[in-house]
Amino acid sequence: MNAPTSPHVLAAEQRPIPDAFMAALSARFGSQCVTSQAVREQHGRDEGSITAPPPAAVVYAESSQDVQDAVALCHQYEVPVIAYGAGSSLEGHLLAVQGGISIDVNRMNKVLSIDTEDLTITVQPGITRKQLNEAIKDTGFFFPIDPGADASIGGMASTRASGTNAVRYGTMRENVLALEVVTAIGQLIRTGNRAKKSAAGYDLTRLMVGSEGTLGIFTEISLRIYPLPEAVSAAICSFPTIEAAVRTVIETIQMGIPIARVELIDVNAVRMVNAYSKLDLREEPMLLMEFHGSPTGVKEQAEMVQDLASEHGGNAFEWAERPEDRTRLFTARHNAYFAAVSSVPGCRCITTDTCVPISRLADALLQCVTEADASGIPYFLVGHVGDGNFHFGYLIDPDNDSQRAQAEQLNHQLVQRAIALGGTCTGEHGIGVHKQGFLLEEAGEGAVAMMRAIKQALDPKNILNPGKIFQLG
Amino acid sequence: MNAPTSPHVLAAEQRPIPDAFMAALSARFGSQCVTSQAVREQHGRDEGSITAPPPAAVVYAESSQDVQDAVALCHQYEVPVIAYGAGSSLEGHLLAVQGGISIDVNRMNKVLSIDTEDLTITVQPGITRKQLNEAIKDTGFFFPIDPGADASIGGMASTRASGTNAVRYGTMRENVLALEVVTAIGQLIRTGNRAKKSAAGYDLTRLMVGSEGTLGIFTEISLRIYPLPEAVSAAICSFPTIEAAVRTVIETIQMGIPIARVELIDVNAVRMVNAYSKLDLREEPMLLMEFHGSPTGVKEQAEMVQDLASEHGGNAFEWAERPEDRTRLFTARHNAYFAAVSSVPGCRCITTDTCVPISRLADALLQCVTEADASGIPYFLVGHVGDGNFHFGYLIDPDNDSQRAQAEQLNHQLVQRAIALGGTCTGEHGIGVHKQGFLLEEAGEGAVAMMRAIKQALDPKNILNPGKIFQLG
Repeated sequence: MNAPTSPHVLAAEQRPIPDAFMAALSARFGSQCVTSQAVREQHGRDEGSITAPPPAAVVYAESSQDVQDAVALCHQYEVPVIAYGAGSSLEGHLLAVQGGISIDVNRMNKVLSIDTEDLTITVQPGITRKQLNEAIKDTGFFFPIDPGADASIGGMASTRASGTNAVRYGTMRENVLALEVVTAIGQLIRTGNRAKKSAAGYDLTRLMVGSEGTLGIFTEISLRIYPLPEAVSAAICSFPTIEAAVRTVIETIQMGIPIARVELIDVNAVRMVNAYSKLDLREEPMLLMEFHGSPTGVKEQAEMVQDLASEHGGNAFEWAERPEDRTRLFTARHNAYFAAVSSVPGCRCITTDTCVPISRLADALLQCVTEADASGIPYFLVGHVGDGNFHFGYLIDPDNDSQRAQAEQLNHQLVQRAIALGGTCTGEHGIGVHKQGFLLEEAGEGAVAMMRAIKQALDPKNILNPGKIFQLG
Repeated sequence: MNAPTSPHVLAAEQRPIPDAFMAALSARFGSQCVTSQAVREQHGRDEGSITAPPPAAVVYAESSQDVQDAVALCHQYEVPVIAYGAGSSLEGHLLAVQGGISIDVNRMNKVLSIDTEDLTITVQPGITRKQLNEAIKDTGFFFPIDPGADASIGGMASTRASGTNAVRYGTMRENVLALEVVTAIGQLIRTGNRAKKSAAGYDLTRLMVGSEGTLGIFTEISLRIYPLPEAVSAAICSFPTIEAAVRTVIETIQMGIPIARVELIDVNAVRMVNAYSKLDLREEPMLLMEFHGSPTGVKEQAEMVQDLASEHGGNAFEWAERPEDRTRLFTARHNAYFAAVSSVPGCRCITTDTCVPISRLADALLQCVTEADASGIPYFLVGHVGDGNFHFGYLIDPDNDSQRAQAEQLNHQLVQRAIALGGTCTGEHGIGVHKQGFLLEEAGEGAVAMMRAIKQALDPKNILNPGKIFQLG
């Protein structure tokens, strides 16, 4: 393993990998266990800006039993273990900062059951959100949670992900009903059930969702699905300023209009998206909106938002009536991150993820725009603003430590502002290795100590994705 | 303390109360600490059918600091401590089965802040749901969660309560945003924040909600509130059979009609309610429904449900247009439990609380009706059937052990049926002392072991409401 070469390459406390462990792993998994440099490196990084040495091996799990057996061996030899889905996390969740192995769950990508009578589906963790929706597209139902990347459902549950539809349909917190989980000793447990509500003991499902692989590895996930809306319409509206767009959103939410999506895209992001996705969106701050419901309901909602927008100087809505036009627009929005990264060759992106109560959205956001403009660092701003959630992406030269420090400083100011306004340092990306200081500022030492105590109780050897969310001891 | 006099009087492992503890408690709390027999007995029971010797003292807390200091003393002397709100729980949650003291939080009943811009409110735990809605009635907002009794918000959060509105507005799981909690060592922590979503570390708020006082005592609770609907209408519909009513509900939910309340009341309950609340409802199985929305939305919803009902032989809807008529009907529904208990002088009620996926509601419920009819025990059946949640109440002679055993047997059959259908042994009442065996059947030993590990990590001396949810060791 390499020694760290810069402050953003983490290799703290690399734990020893006993030869006997590698032999046992290889004996149990044969060709499912891979140790080539390329495969290990692929599994040792994510989309974030921090790197670490790769894991010692990658196990391609094909069943819950495979995951159980791999974890049991890790427990026996005290070797760290990190589940790997799509590799799209942003805060260093997948980095083997203490060494260990990666369990790749991509071969566990089946839909196990669909129950359209109860609006639930049970899947394996490696299925991606797009694969899932493709698999159920003929049923008349869909799964709405859509982080930008085509993330795996296991990873989305692990990070409590959300996306553009969360303003109407909630996040993974609201949409994971039950789990099958491999515990730190390789035991299989089930949490939750398919009833709509339950008061039966501790809410282990909600504890597991967002635990970033530190309390267990998910092997089955039951989710809520939704009937495809009777009517859908999407619209774009450009605004003279970001503030005008944001004020429109605040009023939309406060009026209780059940908008399904409302995305803010700043002028920088519009330019990047135009170039990357070959669009010709007007180069002004814009809102990209979608309305779901009955035909009359959708019309009512859209008219109300249009009135609010025009009071704030918004242009007339441009409608995207055809499904393929809507898909093109939201695909472009989902690709904003990739559009941005490709706009500055060789850059890494430091992505922010604060979320504040809707009434404080303008306070939280506008000062940050001023600060980002003043910094001179290329950046873009997008946001699931109906939730009070927005992302700045600072596009830094990964070898320029001073620029990195400047971007981190911008992020720090933004997080402190969000916390002071009653918000959170992360709306949907999670803590990983990158935001552990922010978590302490936000939750306080007492609450983080409680998280540590839970971790130590459920994983006494600290083998499940160690070094993430908080430091132990 | 009395020795147990029958199997349903629990006094397992009464722990010693050191004299030095009582002296320190009295010195700290003076007249806020009461040891009279009457007060202790009042705080040592709930509305359930199991009893235990009363706590050794009752501390009337007036602040978070009071709760912290009382818990810190309990921690120092290893004395059990049980928070007390309205005393309306049903599964023995408040029983001092291992001795100890009660902390009465009724004096902590203030609204601390209302934020109508972000639809949140922060309250102290002793405020009841009716006091809360009275306090905000002029703001245009309301808090929808309504268990039958006028429960305290702290108790409702502790048991993950719900009620008639949950079909539309969710349960305490969905509506508690943040907590201030006194931990087992008397430390004050905060969980959650006011942002609509967060991915910041373990979801301690959801872990605490439903933990029945075993992981911490809540001293502040932030809740979601909702704008009063523009239009509300309520209707009653009688059916020839329970099955016809249940089929109507299943189809209503499966069609996605956003009904706000849909309560099943069987003919026994209708008779009891008529007598108790001086009503003249038609003595047939009935659904009591409420619709919220825009005037056209409410009309649409009601028409759709009316069509479904008439397909199943339901009578024409009887409308309750005036707010006072609606209140009278739902108050009568909320009082069904008390109506039933007063219908059989001297009885105790064994209440069931299963919840199943909506498609299995008829399977779960109809066989139980047959069994209850065959038993000869007086009973009633009510249900928040839109959630798949229903309650049988078996009205037993508390001194008739054979009748008690028979009712418990009916409950057992009902729970096993619900679990086999993918449901839960408790939709909203919690586990307490009464359902610990059911929890094991439902969740499995592995998941309950995980709950125990969390409990032992957060409360190593096992002082917070010990003996509830599960047995340790």
